[in-house]
Amino acid sequence: MAPIKNGRLLFNEVPTGYPIPGRTTVYDGSGTIDVESEPLNGSILVKTLVLSVDPYLRGKMRAPEAKSYNPPFALGEPLYSHGVGKVVRSEHANFKPGDYVYGSLLYAEYFVPKDVSYLQVLVRPEPSLPWSVYIGAAGMPGQTAYYGWKAYSKAKAGETVFVSTAAGPVGSMVVQLAKQDGCKVIASAGSDEKVKFAKEIGADVAFNYKTTNTEEVLAKEGPIDIYWDNVGGSTLDAVLGNVAPFARIIICGYISQYNGEEPYGIKNMRQVLTNRVAINGVLVFDHHARYEEEFYKVVPKKLATGEFKYSEDITRGLDKGGEAILEVQKGTNTAKKVIVVAND
Amino acid sequence: MAPIKNGRLLFNEVPTGYPIPGRTTVYDGSGTIDVESEPLNGSILVKTLVLSVDPYLRGKMRAPEAKSYNPPFALGEPLYSHGVGKVVRSEHANFKPGDYVYGSLLYAEYFVPKDVSYLQVLVRPEPSLPWSVYIGAAGMPGQTAYYGWKAYSKAKAGETVFVSTAAGPVGSMVVQLAKQDGCKVIASAGSDEKVKFAKEIGADVAFNYKTTNTEEVLAKEGPIDIYWDNVGGSTLDAVLGNVAPFARIIICGYISQYNGEEPYGIKNMRQVLTNRVAINGVLVFDHHARYEEEFYKVVPKKLATGEFKYSEDITRGLDKGGEAILEVQKGTNTAKKVIVVAND
Repeated sequence: MAPIKNGRLLFNEVPTGYPIPGRTTVYDGSGTIDVESEPLNGSILVKTLVLSVDPYLRGKMRAPEAKSYNPPFALGEPLYSHGVGKVVRSEHANFKPGDYVYGSLLYAEYFVPKDVSYLQVLVRPEPSLPWSVYIGAAGMPGQTAYYGWKAYSKAKAGETVFVSTAAGPVGSMVVQLAKQDGCKVIASAGSDEKVKFAKEIGADVAFNYKTTNTEEVLAKEGPIDIYWDNVGGSTLDAVLGNVAPFARIIICGYISQYNGEEPYGIKNMRQVLTNRVAINGVLVFDHHARYEEEFYKVVPKKLATGEFKYSEDITRGLDKGGEAILEVQKGTNTAKKVIVVAND
Repeated sequence: MAPIKNGRLLFNEVPTGYPIPGRTTVYDGSGTIDVESEPLNGSILVKTLVLSVDPYLRGKMRAPEAKSYNPPFALGEPLYSHGVGKVVRSEHANFKPGDYVYGSLLYAEYFVPKDVSYLQVLVRPEPSLPWSVYIGAAGMPGQTAYYGWKAYSKAKAGETVFVSTAAGPVGSMVVQLAKQDGCKVIASAGSDEKVKFAKEIGADVAFNYKTTNTEEVLAKEGPIDIYWDNVGGSTLDAVLGNVAPFARIIICGYISQYNGEEPYGIKNMRQVLTNRVAINGVLVFDHHARYEEEFYKVVPKKLATGEFKYSEDITRGLDKGGEAILEVQKGTNTAKKVIVVAND
């Protein structure tokens, strides 16, 4: 068979602020691949179907000197993130052609992973849910919410919960977990459309933080027993100024400072003492061992029946990947951002 | 018997900065009491022996409007803090003359408590230790350290611990608990004398934060697995900039902001996410039910045998109480500050 096009989205330059499409990332449509003869060297050939675009990707767009849990992207190489792909050919015992794989996928239409340990065969517990959901509400973002909520919320019915970025794939899952636990939920988001979605999934109070003062809402609707933080900075400070005794704060994201912003100085830290607050940082991969099995038993079913809701904002084609990434950093996406690279 | 002098230290004025002796607090030596005929109305007559002067007292010197876990002192009334006294007379079944009582004592040579529920009969598990130790290393400050360490440190041998105000009654107990658990201990204090004591009790690295840059020490000796915070502000920020993955930060005091200082803005909070840090605020009274019995079994014995060390800075006489309080706020005391009001 003749070689076919194999477009890729490459990391081209370390950004200082927002990642600029065509500069920070560059689409290379010039490559080709012969899917029948591409050497596998004991690995597999993956056709990429869907890719998850998440806030944390900005942390990987850095010079390799800066230390983090999160390894940097390599300049000149394709980006990668959670995704779902289809096995086209295999020389590895764990995978056979036609298998679907979930894990770390390259931003390439086709690729041969150097290390297949980042991939697992994905058998959808609920086949009615599209693959994109398995990188969203039923994938890493949903897991992040579920694991963090189970590990650190200590939620009791009647408590007041505040969720920032409440229309995103993590925040919207937290809103629904909190409602399921009988809590009052205050939700913030960055557009009226997102606020509408937060209300649809059960938030008791939802507001657009760009047009409504967060501190005033918290002073009126608080004090806050549980805060799910995806943004950090002044929002976190406002919550600390309105915490209830023995509040729990779960820091899961800090997008207010991902794009070169001057760090905001948190002034209300003394409240951690006065109100005996527990603050914990949560990253999904620390908690798979404890909660992954439970997650796949519980969450996809609730999504399939509609008990839990999700919302997606789909970009088609890797050539638009840079724009998709920028939208998520700026919050101009309307819901969970997915790049659909190919149809199944 | 004729009335005798009954000096008292009164809360006179809400301070804006440091509490000024003679202004914030005023000694009133004009009162008298007839110890034989003072009406008890079902209560007891207490002769005050020792009083504990602690940083948290500043938080009680405020206008009653400001909310806190910590009720404010009443203007024109005596201060109160943890102390030990002797029962002179009793009309209450729980107390008999000659008993020693521990709990919340008025800054008065003699007093009749309105509510004896704040007092308990104190039988020293180690009679060789003076009463003053039972309001220090074997009392509330020692308990604070012990409870917080047991509840939140999750210490493992070989981990690196940083303790601020390491020569104080809380910090010095934490240093010794950390060494007992096989940790490397970095200790900071505000004078060379205090640094010397921190070394004597086992700190591996001890420095005077007024003459040595905290951040440089932490960058060299860290990263920090456990931070015991008694000060907050820039020290806490420096620790956040030098935390190890899964670090635990225990906030037990925030003296950098007790005296009207402009709140310092913590810039390194994003590290809570990056390094999955757990931060907890600890106040002693939340943890008595879980740890008090264990504390009295373990700690006084170690203090009596010299396995745990303590150090005291004694002020004699309530008339010097205002100065003692100011010294603790400024850190010019040399060790655990105790007011000896009367000899046993």
